Amino acid sequence: MPGLAVNVIDIDDPADPRVDDFRDLNSVDRRPDLPVLPGGRPGRGLVIAEGVLVAQRMIASRFETHAFLGVAKRLAELDADLRDPSLTGVPFFRATAEVMAEVVGFHLNRGVLAVSRRPATLTVPDILDSARTVAILEGVNDHENIGSIFRNAAGLGVDAVLFGQGCADPLYRRCVRVSMGHALLVPFARFDDWPRGLDLLRNRDFQLVSMTPDPDAVTLAEAVTADKVGFLVGAEGPGLTASAMAATDVKARIPMSRGTDSLNVATAAAVAFYERARSGTMGE
Amino acid sequence: MPGLAVNVIDIDDPADPRVDDFRDLNSVDRRPDLPVLPGGRPGRGLVIAEGVLVAQRMIASRFETHAFLGVAKRLAELDADLRDPSLTGVPFFRATAEVMAEVVGFHLNRGVLAVSRRPATLTVPDILDSARTVAILEGVNDHENIGSIFRNAAGLGVDAVLFGQGCADPLYRRCVRVSMGHALLVPFARFDDWPRGLDLLRNRDFQLVSMTPDPDAVTLAEAVTADKVGFLVGAEGPGLTASAMAATDVKARIPMSRGTDSLNVATAAAVAFYERARSGTMGE
Repeated sequence: MPGLAVNVIDIDDPADPRVDDFRDLNSVDRRPDLPVLPGGRPGRGLVIAEGVLVAQRMIASRFETHAFLGVAKRLAELDADLRDPSLTGVPFFRATAEVMAEVVGFHLNRGVLAVSRRPATLTVPDILDSARTVAILEGVNDHENIGSIFRNAAGLGVDAVLFGQGCADPLYRRCVRVSMGHALLVPFARFDDWPRGLDLLRNRDFQLVSMTPDPDAVTLAEAVTADKVGFLVGAEGPGLTASAMAATDVKARIPMSRGTDSLNVATAAAVAFYERARSGTMGE
Repeated sequence: MPGLAVNVIDIDDPADPRVDDFRDLNSVDRRPDLPVLPGGRPGRGLVIAEGVLVAQRMIASRFETHAFLGVAKRLAELDADLRDPSLTGVPFFRATAEVMAEVVGFHLNRGVLAVSRRPATLTVPDILDSARTVAILEGVNDHENIGSIFRNAAGLGVDAVLFGQGCADPLYRRCVRVSMGHALLVPFARFDDWPRGLDLLRNRDFQLVSMTPDPDAVTLAEAVTADKVGFLVGAEGPGLTASAMAATDVKARIPMSRGTDSLNVATAAAVAFYERARSGTMGE
């Protein structure tokens, strides 16, 4: 078994500039994960993985981890992962929990962070060539919901997540955390032209299904008929825009009780993904 | 149209004892929604509804609202609801946002609170006589997950939520908020004897379905066969205990991609509820 690929470096001084990529993670105007800072100044847009499981997923992903910061216990837990040749020479900054807390700005009970730069952006056509089921988001600007959608997509066999207009950044720290790291593994891309870009799917024989609470829509189980499917979901409250819905093939509803709100958007997406996984498994 | 049933009282002094039921909502050792305070001292166990929608649901529920605290704008928005004769003489404490923030201990952007005492506890047999689909929770101790399960239960036609061992309080403030008030509307009860109390369901011809990520389990779609069904879900991570699973009729899995985590417990519950709503709607 090869030795550690990473280069373990002890950090005693929280002000050490070598750990700047992990500094002030909650700061509104300095946090390293924002591509654009308040006021429009360019940010670093780094991608931060928190905890052993998410760090492992970053190592396994197309994101190139360029540093770690963690306590000795987590270094030991990641031992097998840190032998990966792709990590040769990458620094693992080892520190106490107290020093880590000083650097990141709060006590981080997961005990380890990994950081990467953003890899080259994928395009919608890049992704569609090998996809059979995709999620398409419009106006979903809550990081927790986007993270949950990535987690649900990974769990339920969805091949990619595509972003229409008005969505938040899927590589924001909280989103990556809530996704359990699947925001780094499930391919995603943004439409340049919305909703006209949906033609890219139509031209590849995807059935486009708008998820809506509209009681006049057909049920989800009736709606999904094609071999390749894109599920469109909109933000809670407003839902999908009329122009996005008009660009799809069918409106589908989840059978709901009268007098209740629609489901949370990530839950509605999970139900749509399940309907697809269910049919695939059950041979319907 | 009758006038307001509530008695509007202006509150200028945040120290006014008449609003004590809304005081220090985030305080670890004084918050009014805990039935038991740290150290085992008895708490007040009040039930707090936040925001217009959740306050409306409290008014419509079996919980007897005994006071409101809100800004003038929310009083106006609740105008029709506050004419309900059941609210005759109930005080609506009107205050500025600043005074409200002083009372509750933080700025509350929903602008209105309603409070009730806990009504008489329901028993499992009380609930089962009119139920066809129930959720049964074991070890679910996260308030946000419990709140989401109530919201999903209400949306997807589940008649009741039953609590086995190790679950958190569904009437905790955060749980009520995340449930969108459905924790006040969907009946719930606790088992006195766990898991033996599951016999109460078996004796009423409920099929008991354990939700599990176990790949050897049958799929959810194959598992659900009876007219009356109880879905058991356990906490993320540990899942259901062996003794609870042994007391059920079938283990069911959601078809998942390899190498992923199981879904969040509230999402897994939503998928199970959907499978049931789907079959009901589709006449399978």
